[in-house]
Amino acid sequence: MEIKLAKSYGFCFGVKRAINIAENTKDASTVGPLIHNNEEINRLQTNFNVNTLKDENDIEGVKRAIIRTHGITKNGLLTLQNSDTKIINATCPFVTKPQMICENMSEEGYDVVIFGDKNHPEVKSVQSYAKNGAKVVLTVPDLKALKLGKKIAIVSQTTRKIEEFLLLTDYLVRNFKEVRVFNTICNATFENQDAAKELAKEADVMVVIGGKNSSNTKQLFSISKEYCNDSFLIENEKELKKEWFENKNLCGITAGASTPDWIIEKVIGKISKIKV
Amino acid sequence: MEIKLAKSYGFCFGVKRAINIAENTKDASTVGPLIHNNEEINRLQTNFNVNTLKDENDIEGVKRAIIRTHGITKNGLLTLQNSDTKIINATCPFVTKPQMICENMSEEGYDVVIFGDKNHPEVKSVQSYAKNGAKVVLTVPDLKALKLGKKIAIVSQTTRKIEEFLLLTDYLVRNFKEVRVFNTICNATFENQDAAKELAKEADVMVVIGGKNSSNTKQLFSISKEYCNDSFLIENEKELKKEWFENKNLCGITAGASTPDWIIEKVIGKISKIKV
Repeated sequence: MEIKLAKSYGFCFGVKRAINIAENTKDASTVGPLIHNNEEINRLQTNFNVNTLKDENDIEGVKRAIIRTHGITKNGLLTLQNSDTKIINATCPFVTKPQMICENMSEEGYDVVIFGDKNHPEVKSVQSYAKNGAKVVLTVPDLKALKLGKKIAIVSQTTRKIEEFLLLTDYLVRNFKEVRVFNTICNATFENQDAAKELAKEADVMVVIGGKNSSNTKQLFSISKEYCNDSFLIENEKELKKEWFENKNLCGITAGASTPDWIIEKVIGKISKIKV
Repeated sequence: MEIKLAKSYGFCFGVKRAINIAENTKDASTVGPLIHNNEEINRLQTNFNVNTLKDENDIEGVKRAIIRTHGITKNGLLTLQNSDTKIINATCPFVTKPQMICENMSEEGYDVVIFGDKNHPEVKSVQSYAKNGAKVVLTVPDLKALKLGKKIAIVSQTTRKIEEFLLLTDYLVRNFKEVRVFNTICNATFENQDAAKELAKEADVMVVIGGKNSSNTKQLFSISKEYCNDSFLIENEKELKKEWFENKNLCGITAGASTPDWIIEKVIGKISKIKV
């Protein structure tokens, strides 16, 4: 069986940057998990003594607090700033941008809509920057249920599908006189998604590696599944099952933006040993 | 054969307003044809002595100049303002709006895109308000061919189809970080279009009445044709052909936003006398 990696996969710019910051900051704790990948969090803890705090109220005695890639709420940041803890901000610049858009647009009197998962820490952090509360939606029915003014601004969670974002912007353009659309979907997400789609089209079986609570990994899995029915989402090589690969000729592999290369290598190593 | 009028058809607010102004202004000439309907222009000339000028340079000795529904270029307006002629502005307020958007957005440093026909007087008038020249496009390939900056604003000719506008805004949202979308398509156009579509679905033959150089009439015809293959575009009852109605049960009728009721009535009168 041939094993083929997607043309683009794994760590994005923001995650590489955050891990680099964590590895190079002594006695640091992250406010919430640094990235959505438990294996990498464990590695940082074991090798670099990077601890994970529950939230911004959990900093008693903490010397250095690293703000994770997804960002933190405006009030959370204020709590940290008023403490004695030194703050190192590893918020991805692609998340800082929608935070600022949300703040500016709400100040300019726009009703701000965020396309994303209202429970996701990135969305919570972006939403917290809107003056009078931004509305978070996932679907057109969600949008329809909102009471909105005449001037609308919309941003997206960085890891969302552009096609789903366009369903929302189409609805808004149809129904409102002015819509300011900020495409804050991250290019890295696009590239991994496009590559996953291309690979899934030709693969007999697809293995998607990433955290099961990672939004972008779930998106990759959903895209893979669309083009290759035998798609499987795993966090590490231990979850691989021999029967997935029976009678398959081409195994495609991709990984979420928070999946480190060393996990991907372990998965490939184990698959290559499976006799089918 | 049954004859059925579309639920919404004919004169829009802006046209009704302009005709009312023309009928009530003594010794007036319009700068270019007041609306896109020759029959109505002739009626205004005969009954109200409303003359039609070639353009804004043709005002020697003219007492009162009426600016037509489609508006006039910014320079054209300046020429008129510097003359001795009194100006009566019958520009549709729904055209004044994209003019202002075009001016403001270009002043704010946005690259302005206009969805429309570059030879249409409305589009020319809107375009003239952009400081550094707005780009006029009809299709996504037109858009792709443009060199655009990072910040884009897009407006539409009032009489365009929303579905085609969305193709353009989708392309822009996919490819640019910030897009300001101003849906300047007129509701009246929407309503006439929706009603034409509904009627064309059930009709065996559709008669669309309006100026053959009228953008919104051509749109109505194209929508009718999509749902009812036997659709015909006519300017007046003289163009009706008996064979269109042979073996038909339901004749649908709609009319463009510049088509006066008295023309529609004549058409219905003639069709109702056709024996099929």
